[in-house]
Amino acid sequence: MKEGKGGKVWKGRFRTPLHPEALQFSSCLCVDRRLYKEDIEGSIAHVSMLAKQEILTRKEADKIVRALEQIEKEIESRKFKLDSPATSSDRFVAEDVHMAIEARLFKKIGPLAGKLHTARSRNDQVALDERLYLKRTSTEIMESIRSLQRAFVTVAEKFQDVLMPGYTHMQRAQPVLLAHHLLAYVYMLDRDHDRFRDCLKRIDASPLGAAALAGTSFPIDRKRTARMLGLSNIVYNSMDAVSDRDVQIEFLSACSITQMHLSRLAEELLLWSSQEWRFAEIAEEFTTGSSIMPQKRNPDIAELVRGKTGRVYGSLMGMLTMMKGLPLAYNRDLQEDKSFLFDAADTTTDSLRMCTLMMESIHFQSERFTKELRSDFLLATELADFLVRKGLPFRTAHACVGEAVALASDRRCSLSDLTLPEYRKISKLFDESLYKLLDPRTSIELKRSVGSTSPAEVKADIRGWRKRLW
Amino acid sequence: MKEGKGGKVWKGRFRTPLHPEALQFSSCLCVDRRLYKEDIEGSIAHVSMLAKQEILTRKEADKIVRALEQIEKEIESRKFKLDSPATSSDRFVAEDVHMAIEARLFKKIGPLAGKLHTARSRNDQVALDERLYLKRTSTEIMESIRSLQRAFVTVAEKFQDVLMPGYTHMQRAQPVLLAHHLLAYVYMLDRDHDRFRDCLKRIDASPLGAAALAGTSFPIDRKRTARMLGLSNIVYNSMDAVSDRDVQIEFLSACSITQMHLSRLAEELLLWSSQEWRFAEIAEEFTTGSSIMPQKRNPDIAELVRGKTGRVYGSLMGMLTMMKGLPLAYNRDLQEDKSFLFDAADTTTDSLRMCTLMMESIHFQSERFTKELRSDFLLATELADFLVRKGLPFRTAHACVGEAVALASDRRCSLSDLTLPEYRKISKLFDESLYKLLDPRTSIELKRSVGSTSPAEVKADIRGWRKRLW
Amino acid sequence: MKEGKGGKVWKGRFRTPLHPEALQFSSCLCVDRRLYKEDIEGSIAHVSMLAKQEILTRKEADKIVRALEQIEKEIESRKFKLDSPATSSDRFVAEDVHMAIEARLFKKIGPLAGKLHTARSRNDQVALDERLYLKRTSTEIMESIRSLQRAFVTVAEKFQDVLMPGYTHMQRAQPVLLAHHLLAYVYMLDRDHDRFRDCLKRIDASPLGAAALAGTSFPIDRKRTARMLGLSNIVYNSMDAVSDRDVQIEFLSACSITQMHLSRLAEELLLWSSQEWRFAEIAEEFTTGSSIMPQKRNPDIAELVRGKTGRVYGSLMGMLTMMKGLPLAYNRDLQEDKSFLFDAADTTTDSLRMCTLMMESIHFQSERFTKELRSDFLLATELADFLVRKGLPFRTAHACVGEAVALASDRRCSLSDLTLPEYRKISKLFDESLYKLLDPRTSIELKRSVGSTSPAEVKADIRGWRKRLW
Amino acid sequence: MKEGKGGKVWKGRFRTPLHPEALQFSSCLCVDRRLYKEDIEGSIAHVSMLAKQEILTRKEADKIVRALEQIEKEIESRKFKLDSPATSSDRFVAEDVHMAIEARLFKKIGPLAGKLHTARSRNDQVALDERLYLKRTSTEIMESIRSLQRAFVTVAEKFQDVLMPGYTHMQRAQPVLLAHHLLAYVYMLDRDHDRFRDCLKRIDASPLGAAALAGTSFPIDRKRTARMLGLSNIVYNSMDAVSDRDVQIEFLSACSITQMHLSRLAEELLLWSSQEWRFAEIAEEFTTGSSIMPQKRNPDIAELVRGKTGRVYGSLMGMLTMMKGLPLAYNRDLQEDKSFLFDAADTTTDSLRMCTLMMESIHFQSERFTKELRSDFLLATELADFLVRKGLPFRTAHACVGEAVALASDRRCSLSDLTLPEYRKISKLFDESLYKLLDPRTSIELKRSVGSTSPAEVKADIRGWRKRLW
Repeated sequence: MKEGKGGKVWKGRFRTPLHPEALQFSSCLCVDRRLYKEDIEGSIAHVSMLAKQEILTRKEADKIVRALEQIEKEIESRKFKLDSPATSSDRFVAEDVHMAIEARLFKKIGPLAGKLHTARSRNDQVALDERLYLKRTSTEIMESIRSLQRAFVTVAEKFQDVLMPGYTHMQRAQPVLLAHHLLAYVYMLDRDHDRFRDCLKRIDASPLGAAALAGTSFPIDRKRTARMLGLSNIVYNSMDAVSDRDVQIEFLSACSITQMHLSRLAEELLLWSSQEWRFAEIAEEFTTGSSIMPQKRNPDIAELVRGKTGRVYGSLMGMLTMMKGLPLAYNRDLQEDKSFLFDAADTTTDSLRMCTLMMESIHFQSERFTKELRSDFLLATELADFLVRKGLPFRTAHACVGEAVALASDRRCSLSDLTLPEYRKISKLFDESLYKLLDPRTSIELKRSVGSTSPAEVKADIRGWRKRLW
Repeated sequence: MKEGKGGKVWKGRFRTPLHPEALQFSSCLCVDRRLYKEDIEGSIAHVSMLAKQEILTRKEADKIVRALEQIEKEIESRKFKLDSPATSSDRFVAEDVHMAIEARLFKKIGPLAGKLHTARSRNDQVALDERLYLKRTSTEIMESIRSLQRAFVTVAEKFQDVLMPGYTHMQRAQPVLLAHHLLAYVYMLDRDHDRFRDCLKRIDASPLGAAALAGTSFPIDRKRTARMLGLSNIVYNSMDAVSDRDVQIEFLSACSITQMHLSRLAEELLLWSSQEWRFAEIAEEFTTGSSIMPQKRNPDIAELVRGKTGRVYGSLMGMLTMMKGLPLAYNRDLQEDKSFLFDAADTTTDSLRMCTLMMESIHFQSERFTKELRSDFLLATELADFLVRKGLPFRTAHACVGEAVALASDRRCSLSDLTLPEYRKISKLFDESLYKLLDPRTSIELKRSVGSTSPAEVKADIRGWRKRLW
Repeated sequence: MKEGKGGKVWKGRFRTPLHPEALQFSSCLCVDRRLYKEDIEGSIAHVSMLAKQEILTRKEADKIVRALEQIEKEIESRKFKLDSPATSSDRFVAEDVHMAIEARLFKKIGPLAGKLHTARSRNDQVALDERLYLKRTSTEIMESIRSLQRAFVTVAEKFQDVLMPGYTHMQRAQPVLLAHHLLAYVYMLDRDHDRFRDCLKRIDASPLGAAALAGTSFPIDRKRTARMLGLSNIVYNSMDAVSDRDVQIEFLSACSITQMHLSRLAEELLLWSSQEWRFAEIAEEFTTGSSIMPQKRNPDIAELVRGKTGRVYGSLMGMLTMMKGLPLAYNRDLQEDKSFLFDAADTTTDSLRMCTLMMESIHFQSERFTKELRSDFLLATELADFLVRKGLPFRTAHACVGEAVALASDRRCSLSDLTLPEYRKISKLFDESLYKLLDPRTSIELKRSVGSTSPAEVKADIRGWRKRLW
Repeated sequence: MKEGKGGKVWKGRFRTPLHPEALQFSSCLCVDRRLYKEDIEGSIAHVSMLAKQEILTRKEADKIVRALEQIEKEIESRKFKLDSPATSSDRFVAEDVHMAIEARLFKKIGPLAGKLHTARSRNDQVALDERLYLKRTSTEIMESIRSLQRAFVTVAEKFQDVLMPGYTHMQRAQPVLLAHHLLAYVYMLDRDHDRFRDCLKRIDASPLGAAALAGTSFPIDRKRTARMLGLSNIVYNSMDAVSDRDVQIEFLSACSITQMHLSRLAEELLLWSSQEWRFAEIAEEFTTGSSIMPQKRNPDIAELVRGKTGRVYGSLMGMLTMMKGLPLAYNRDLQEDKSFLFDAADTTTDSLRMCTLMMESIHFQSERFTKELRSDFLLATELADFLVRKGLPFRTAHACVGEAVALASDRRCSLSDLTLPEYRKISKLFDESLYKLLDPRTSIELKRSVGSTSPAEVKADIRGWRKRLW
């Protein structure tokens, strides 16, 4: 009887070794080595369950567990390096993180290492590792979202009195409170948070025990390993468990939507801190200079948040492409999912963090729009609503005020510069009180609808978020 | 005082009409006319609330509501056609479905029509229409998913005894029950269902009352209109309400993942019905002939389900691109969202329906794999597990069986053709009982893990789904 | 002997008709009817060649050709409507434009119609139709690009003296000529033009004669049909000819890159016409009003150009997805390519046209930046270059000027407000002549490199384009 | 006068250092260090030109050049490590590869290092580096494509007599030569090659001298540096030169189309090497075993080629997203382009190589289809063409043969099992000679059209490629 050698886990029927370039092409160790913690955690739970079910002896299990714990420490101290297979002379070693760790285990405890793989396949093993990773990462992203929400609420509170033009079509539309504008992001982020939470319900399940695809004849206890790993459910059907990656795509989709929101924030930061807007100042420590122009202070971090959106979208699209038209069950194509997941998760996490840091240190020029809002046409809607309250249909009122705007525009004056007789020539319903409406603060104070930019609403809303988020 | 003319809702300050080609370019009537029902429903709720809040008189409201109800009937009977603006001589008419309906209203009841727009903007109006559409459509898709799940369970039950090779890497791996394979899709679809349900929680809210972006000074009751429209919540922040499209993207993502699953099913149907597999027969009514080759029976419908995956992915990517880097609040870019939504929703709905019809009428060649499964190497894992039960580490056992496979492979015989002495030359642990394992049905009956392909598990699972889905 | 009935081109071996919902799902007539001209053109060439090769008699061919010409006229006059199959009671009719036309032909000339399909399959027929469409459309897009280039050159010439801040990182960087900035787009568009031209080389080939996939036993003359259709080559290999869609993807890629360029232009138009920039005025006929805010003039057309970018990218991604992993030869998945092509080609063509119209009528506020450019820090690089010319390494010079900027920044004054002693405290190399450099016009006039914003370079460049483009 | 310190290239006006997390977030050194060769090559050319133009002295230039050459050697010997900034205590060092090299230069030669940046910005520097990289990489990919084409031609020649079923809709359609099928890929790859060649025309231009965006006041010679670097042109307009990335997208698009083709090949290899097809054998050294199933031989490399398609598509989509809506000129978003380029280029290069290796060692089961092709219905089209040659319209002939197929199908016999009287009952035009047509080799030998699967055509085609590719 010959012994299988450590790491050479499928050598039996093969005569020719894997072509060295093919090994290089197919190895994912340089990507998936990030999963070593999850891999060891999963193996320990698996072995403990095997012992409990008397498939392994307690002694065997203990020996394996201890060795795995050592290996984890060796990796953390860089004593054992999970390096690229290029440097290895042995084709069977280091195809991926699972094999690298198992080979190390063999070195430590000999053939007993081979018992770790009882009733388990790499197919369910890698599916488990990813779910452990995604559970942890989703939870972290959810907390990062909360931090950014808190930063927004804090800034909204700090600059509570600042008025600014609300924009539609990148044109000034109506006066709003800066705080109201900022709170819009808190709501967007709240939905982002909920998307990760919903996705987490589907992530939070153990595929372990599905084995290669058909389940196993060993009397394993799938629910026990799940419980030991802190997972709430099992992925029931063994073929489904090893072959689908839908929760991974859902995770990438949640990342993409979040990053989309951040790209909008980044765009606004860039607009606001342009010399033309001069509304916001990003703290110097999030800007860089130019290698050629001594006067520049470039908002690079916001630009990168915007630009990195492409990375996250690209990962989502890459994963969707990868899964299209794959028959059941496991296909090696699936290996590629990890670089998409890691890249998107890192980018989203880092972008959330950068936005939080920038919002925590941002400064707004409170007085920037005070004068301009008064002389601008942003209050035209108030006049239309005035006429409506006098009984005019809104469309007719809109047309009347349109005339007033055209008149003022021709004269290059503001709406308050038109005389009452001029207004009354347009509509007899106008009276002296119209001029009181031509003040931006009056405009927002008149707002009465729930969720509007009215100071009372905004204040109450900030209070509400203070309670929820702290 | 001049009256605004019906439909020319923003003429006031303009002197030059929209360029006719620009009107053509910007009109979305030929796309968004699908929303006429939602638009009228929303307007009726809005007007009723305005009357309740005494912003309009009851009489005014009744007149507008009656006219809107007439318009809906006119559209349904094609008496009033929502046609492309190309045929219209008037630039201000027919920019979109909202304006087309309002212009019709003006024709019917004159300037009173203008009161419909009190405390409302097209920005919150279109956001509402989309949410009403998405709520209805998501619910329909969820029901379509249930139908397909039922079709799968029915087929699984009908072909409960059929064995097939389970595949990994498109290579035969281990015997599985066809029913087990089919039930994997029931689980995938269940997660798809849940994704739509989760998305629906976020869809199910009314943006109405956000007005253009800042809210309104009229004393409207946002929650009342929401309630009247059967929506559970309001989108609170007025800027968020009109400027975000994240739930739309989430919906497209749920469609994409569902369609990804269907593309996998389609691929399998295509493989199974190839002359090489000869395992499944798609009913003739879902196949077509060739215009040149008389013998062909092509599985076009399955191919189209696979091919249309590109449409859904493309819509998701298009919408993500559209939203990238847009500052708040409403931008006209958002108009493009509707063609993405309609195309993806239609494709997903239709693909689900086609798959349901195909599964309801599919036939499997029950005996197709009976012989081949016996003579093939799919049972090698059983021998390895046998050695493990005798105390060998799995890796060592794997290597031993690998040798046996190599031997049989060289001789072009099956594993059961090897003699016991030959087996015992590889490992002394082998004994006569090994031959009993070399039967595919024994293999699946030996499976003991939860969710495995064991007949008992599969039967219980079918029973469970029967209860849940009927 | 039974006769095949017109249109039922593959009925022979079938007993059950296509399921009505499956017909609806699979029909592409409502999309591909746009190809009727190409389809008839291709059929006429094919029949003429068949006659020339004596596969058909001259008389038969003439009869078919005359009938096809009639059908074309009937379609154009809407006498024969290429409508959706939903309205048809016959499953075999109207699967696509090819079958609709052939059925009509059968109605006109009876079984002779069946000879049209000699030595031809729908597989090579549709591949031909698309290439004829793409050849025409690419040529049109190339001309549209030229028109937009001309519009740019004309504006550049008209506003030849206007200075503006050049931006990097959305921050003011150095003064440039507006004309120089505009000419950057002429170069981008020139590469777009060349990409379509290069793609056209690969489009410009006839797949006709490939038949279903294997070629034909009839002695056809493939080069003759190609020549008759104005195509320069044939797609040689018959399997390649019917199964690939790479030139279609290349076309979509060229559309995507062009649209990307237009999205950048759109963004700039939106920035420049914001109240903050106040630099450009888009002609009123390319702006719209607000349904609620009487003062608004929204640059909707530019927004739509930016927003529609998602459509084109989505089509590219959809087509790439569709093709991924398809085995040879023709698969029905390919049918979906047409909606991607039409949508992207229309969007690109229309967006080019809109940009051309907007550029032809745009107005720039020539004086907008005159003052600001003087007082701003944009000229700091000039001072650094000054020190370099005095022998200082650039990095050292950069640091010196950085100090000057910091000083002026603290004092909220401009660089020319600093005194010579102050400058000389920073570097002894400064002298009186530095102040002459602090003028934006001097800055651009000092530029000496080829392709720089120097007025002489820009003028010569405009002259060059005038010659090339008119 | 203070000296700027090496590497701190924009410190002048800043007081707060870049936030350490922001440095981490914004550094791209771990990505762009791959460009060190290009960066040094570009710097040497720049410095040499500066000396030639007497902007630097010959001595200064020589000193810089020598130091740069040393640095290149240090990097290659890992004496100087281009490591992540995480390990660096100095915020101004190691933002990117350009700064890392310049800092090293400063260490070597002091402030003179600062003269390297005369008349150059990082904006034109990085644009140059990418173009040098893309030129080299495109050329390499073109050569890799040629290698794969040669492998295909060699296999086609080797298995020149092998018949196989040609497929449409994944169903057997007509007999074809395997060689004909393989040559289809040679044509696809030829268009891929030409796309890279066309893209290369646009890559092959130097942006150097554009400086930050406006050009420079130093009397540089842009064409000289271009020439020295082996680039045929310059990117003329300075704003265009630093702000566009269209050739990069075009390159990614060419990679995507190539990879799409490879994904089709991979799919076919997977089908062909399945137990159901049993047509091709991928050499053992490109397959792997299973960690659980001893009998498996998995075609992982082909799966990975198919799966990695998602990476390339994702990079294309990511880059398109990144560029959407960016105003001129340089924005920091652009930094992200490098990871897309490197990942897509590596994946495409490696996939081409893997396919070449697999094709060079593939084995086909020559006899696999011999029997099946005879008994199958693939020859039905021959019978239809027979009737057409007797004068029947093709559609009528198609219907007749359809009947024969249905009859044989019912009886589960082949077409040659039907008797002549039975055929003549369907059509009187049938005679004894029909049976000679029911042979697959006869079928392909009858083919007469250019580019068909006729052995003569295929042989000539192989000969043609032999001449072109060797």
